[in-house]
Amino acid sequence: MTGPNRLREGVRTSRPIVLTSHPAAGGAAPPVQWGAADPVARGPIVATLTDPAACNAIGTHSGAYSLYRALAVAAGQLRADHRPDFSDTRPAVPIGPFPQWADPRRIVSLDPWGHVTSEAFAARIAAGCDIRPTVAVTRARLNMPEIDLAIRAGFEQTGGMFPELVTRPDLRVFLPPIGGASVYLFGDPALLGRPETRVACRIHDECNGSDVFGSDICTCRPYLAHGVEVCIAMAQRGGAGIMVYNRKEGRALGEVTKFLVYNARKRQEGGDRADAYFLRTECVAGVSDMRFQELMPDVLHWLGVTRIDELVSMSNMKFGPIVASGIEVVKRVPIPDGLIPADAQVEMDAKKAAGYFAETVPDAEELKLAKGRGLLG
Amino acid sequence: MTGPNRLREGVRTSRPIVLTSHPAAGGAAPPVQWGAADPVARGPIVATLTDPAACNAIGTHSGAYSLYRALAVAAGQLRADHRPDFSDTRPAVPIGPFPQWADPRRIVSLDPWGHVTSEAFAARIAAGCDIRPTVAVTRARLNMPEIDLAIRAGFEQTGGMFPELVTRPDLRVFLPPIGGASVYLFGDPALLGRPETRVACRIHDECNGSDVFGSDICTCRPYLAHGVEVCIAMAQRGGAGIMVYNRKEGRALGEVTKFLVYNARKRQEGGDRADAYFLRTECVAGVSDMRFQELMPDVLHWLGVTRIDELVSMSNMKFGPIVASGIEVVKRVPIPDGLIPADAQVEMDAKKAAGYFAETVPDAEELKLAKGRGLLG
Repeated sequence: MTGPNRLREGVRTSRPIVLTSHPAAGGAAPPVQWGAADPVARGPIVATLTDPAACNAIGTHSGAYSLYRALAVAAGQLRADHRPDFSDTRPAVPIGPFPQWADPRRIVSLDPWGHVTSEAFAARIAAGCDIRPTVAVTRARLNMPEIDLAIRAGFEQTGGMFPELVTRPDLRVFLPPIGGASVYLFGDPALLGRPETRVACRIHDECNGSDVFGSDICTCRPYLAHGVEVCIAMAQRGGAGIMVYNRKEGRALGEVTKFLVYNARKRQEGGDRADAYFLRTECVAGVSDMRFQELMPDVLHWLGVTRIDELVSMSNMKFGPIVASGIEVVKRVPIPDGLIPADAQVEMDAKKAAGYFAETVPDAEELKLAKGRGLLG
Repeated sequence: MTGPNRLREGVRTSRPIVLTSHPAAGGAAPPVQWGAADPVARGPIVATLTDPAACNAIGTHSGAYSLYRALAVAAGQLRADHRPDFSDTRPAVPIGPFPQWADPRRIVSLDPWGHVTSEAFAARIAAGCDIRPTVAVTRARLNMPEIDLAIRAGFEQTGGMFPELVTRPDLRVFLPPIGGASVYLFGDPALLGRPETRVACRIHDECNGSDVFGSDICTCRPYLAHGVEVCIAMAQRGGAGIMVYNRKEGRALGEVTKFLVYNARKRQEGGDRADAYFLRTECVAGVSDMRFQELMPDVLHWLGVTRIDELVSMSNMKFGPIVASGIEVVKRVPIPDGLIPADAQVEMDAKKAAGYFAETVPDAEELKLAKGRGLLG
């Protein structure tokens, strides 16, 4: 049987199948008062797919992985009515609450109480309501070889997918099926939310080829590693370092589109050059960027950030929305020239010319020079 | 206006909104003959969301990123009718066709012709059919500090998300909204598909915390780096190295669930120990693993693999499906003990005890010993 068939059969055998685009009659979904200062008053965010009547949100709690959940249920590995046991899972360190949590315009795309659902909604859960966390807080020890090397080198401090968007006007909250964000905090989390705390922050958007495998066509991992260094340095000076890792692979266009653009850049007449850098993406994707950064500052407000002393980013598409959302940015930290891979100079020149933050900006002649390797290089 | 509202308004203003759960009348979707040896006979896979009548597949071409596409259209940044210009985007190196492509039971969850859509379906595209690639093939230069260090050290080389699954029985193909897989080939791609080619392969499932940030609670990045070393070594001996990176964060449970489990492991009575390793995940997720590896071998068949001489994996959940799918595995390569972080010994012991491939297996007493750090560590 082909995969599509297996998947379809699997879904057929999993019961009950509730058409999420068809509102169930009646039901007792808890009301949501977005921006309420108290979690109980705000109400839990429920997107359980097994009972639309009990939902007050469109979407899924596990993002794209809800598809695997469906497969596990279909394959009989997971009971459709499994209720999680959240014993001992509460946050490893407390986060908030912060004043921003009570401002419905400050945080619009994440649940500020998403990490304390077991405690905040204990009564409702005990009453049988299936309330699940959308945020988890834990502790980790990181080992990035670049940091070790830096230390050795003298670095001194050690559209259509959700018909419910149309058919369920009663639901006002949307949990989109995207990877979300991972946040790494450096320094004492208790310093968050205090005006006197100096903050270093890197807003990094996923680039698997560079972040994991070190592909030299872009500056992603080198800038990520530098951001970690800046965060560590700030923490060692008594401040807080915040690394935000957003799952927005390839400017939220995905790797397939990204790699198609790489090929076109390398093959175009005149070679891989800065003055055609954004054009190549627009030709394939219709836009040069699809990251929708307007929602990105939410996670900073969730962390109680009101000022960023050192923003490790050159992007105006990040800087703009952060400032527009009411967060002061004192200083912007560009990537050190020494960390820019040779083949990534095309991207860097193009971004500087496009207005990205930088000390020096290349001129038109400079932008015409082909600096990227060919495909056979 | 709150985010949910902004998103909803955005979607409202984007037109036309087609309810994907409601089949459109008429339409001219190209037929699909899954497993046909010729791409034209097989037919293109079309999941365009703007015109369900023209689709022959359920789902989306850009996985979870289709959500960002919807936002871009809603925000007026992207024309809903944008047609990609695929000039110069064709594969950087040819892949296939291989005999496996013509076996409907061999490849069930990816489009073997997904990287050559522009060429294979040129006529249909010229006729106005919106056919998009689901696979991209490019070239990259990788820089992983671990490899540099190793070289210096002497290394010689939907549960409801898709109502169409129920309402569109006419559609047999499913493109799920998950990240898919990235494949890194080491050595000459022309060696693929030849019986005499010796193959080294690592099947790696995404673990952002370790793969990118080097968290020491698991062996993911160390094993990934070792897999790259083995692939490079095989390529240097005239063979082919294949690194498959599957977007299945946290055993396809996602990072939120993974981090909740970390907290529970560290806090449970008796501390973080191997004999409770899988139980803690089952308590939270209902299953200890949700990766559905049965579909994973597809990408190997797509690459024409019939034998893996060195499989860099200890997992029987990977080994089993690979062998069951008809691929011979000559040798399995465990992670060298020296690469296992101290805090990851809990995971390693638990996996060995669960039957993962290993030279030595810890006994019951050994498994009861708490070896992981506490949360305050």
